[in-house]
Amino acid sequence: MSPRFTVIGNYISPYVRKVLVCLELKGQAYQIDPIAPFVGNERFGELSPLRRIPVLIDGELVLNDSSVICQYLEDCFPAPSLYPTDAAQRAKARWLEEYCDTHLASVLVWKLFYQKVLRRRFFGEETDEAMMNHALAVEIPAALDYLERQLPDDGFAFGALSIADISIACYFRTASFVRYAIDAARWPRMANLVERVQSLPAFQALARLEDVMLRVPLAEQREVLQAHGAPLTSWSLGGQPPRKGFARME
Amino acid sequence: MSPRFTVIGNYISPYVRKVLVCLELKGQAYQIDPIAPFVGNERFGELSPLRRIPVLIDGELVLNDSSVICQYLEDCFPAPSLYPTDAAQRAKARWLEEYCDTHLASVLVWKLFYQKVLRRRFFGEETDEAMMNHALAVEIPAALDYLERQLPDDGFAFGALSIADISIACYFRTASFVRYAIDAARWPRMANLVERVQSLPAFQALARLEDVMLRVPLAEQREVLQAHGAPLTSWSLGGQPPRKGFARME
Repeated sequence: MSPRFTVIGNYISPYVRKVLVCLELKGQAYQIDPIAPFVGNERFGELSPLRRIPVLIDGELVLNDSSVICQYLEDCFPAPSLYPTDAAQRAKARWLEEYCDTHLASVLVWKLFYQKVLRRRFFGEETDEAMMNHALAVEIPAALDYLERQLPDDGFAFGALSIADISIACYFRTASFVRYAIDAARWPRMANLVERVQSLPAFQALARLEDVMLRVPLAEQREVLQAHGAPLTSWSLGGQPPRKGFARME
Repeated sequence: MSPRFTVIGNYISPYVRKVLVCLELKGQAYQIDPIAPFVGNERFGELSPLRRIPVLIDGELVLNDSSVICQYLEDCFPAPSLYPTDAAQRAKARWLEEYCDTHLASVLVWKLFYQKVLRRRFFGEETDEAMMNHALAVEIPAALDYLERQLPDDGFAFGALSIADISIACYFRTASFVRYAIDAARWPRMANLVERVQSLPAFQALARLEDVMLRVPLAEQREVLQAHGAPLTSWSLGGQPPRKGFARME
């Protein structure tokens, strides 16, 4: 029997990772169709009107947007809770999630990882070095300054592990694919938090599969993922990638 | 005594409108600093790290992002609820809100209202006619097709009024500033929904103040808003607008 939940989305995506971590932490089984970024056939377009990943399928319900999906999982499975109990702290956790989904995504994913890897490998275009260097020199440090001020001296952002910690760790995981690491001397709270969250079993289990995606050419990914125990769907909505040879990342 | 809540953000913004409508519907008093879009002094930058409006201030708590703020107001004041009770419907309502905040904002606000009014009046730049015409001919109709399919034959999206209906109506209100109206023959459910929601007293009360903003030059807005009963703050975080003469919109 298929598990209750199906996720459409690639292990490389920080948005997808956020949803998978929540499913893992809440002990919910799922199957996944790890379609490559920027592809997806017509059926995918019907399920995801903005052609974004992740998509969560739960019976008749089809949900888009990682924040909406994570909140839905919390509503369905309140324990372990991934949102602070106090309304003000819960709001701040949701804001930090939103800050990650928009601003960290912009500076770490689109201006760094995408520029350094995907743009070249997937679309055959040159890296925008000026944009990337500005992100590294100015924008990423400013985001780290802001986040550092939001954290306590030690531990998670709001006592127990929450969606805020998970979101922060997800984006810095994607940044680590291009060897970006937080300078622990300059941002000790952030470096400590990200290391702590990424060490959780839920993150570690996913990290092994992410490493497969980074090492293996697109055409062989499903087979190798299966061999590594990834809970793959028997079908795929993945269309044709824009360019052959999307493979080995740095 | 000042009311509990302070909102920083202009009546023209659909994101701000969403928050104000929720405050009105929940019967919560607030004061507002209607700073012009794209301005705001250093203190504003401290309160809003991405320099976006709205900001909600509730005592020591400073919140950013309209979706986070509306959910916080729901958590603090559960009645009248603006989120469906059923978890699946609640998730779908949150998705429609997100669809509005990203995609409707893109096609109705940035590619239409901003191009037609703000870009010229505020920055002295020319309208990008090609972008605007593509939005009008292709993107806005496609968004209306999608939203029309999400609605029931009659009434609100999920039975009682919810954040989904409010969001949709907020974006089409900003579009109406440049005389965009939904073709009721082609999208009857959407036309009916938007009219119904915009007729609510909460929307009507705000509409009178929005009309002031559209008619009155920037330098005179606070005075005229005050005369119209707007609950203004005694202070303002508004900085200098990029260009003099931001005034009379069409």
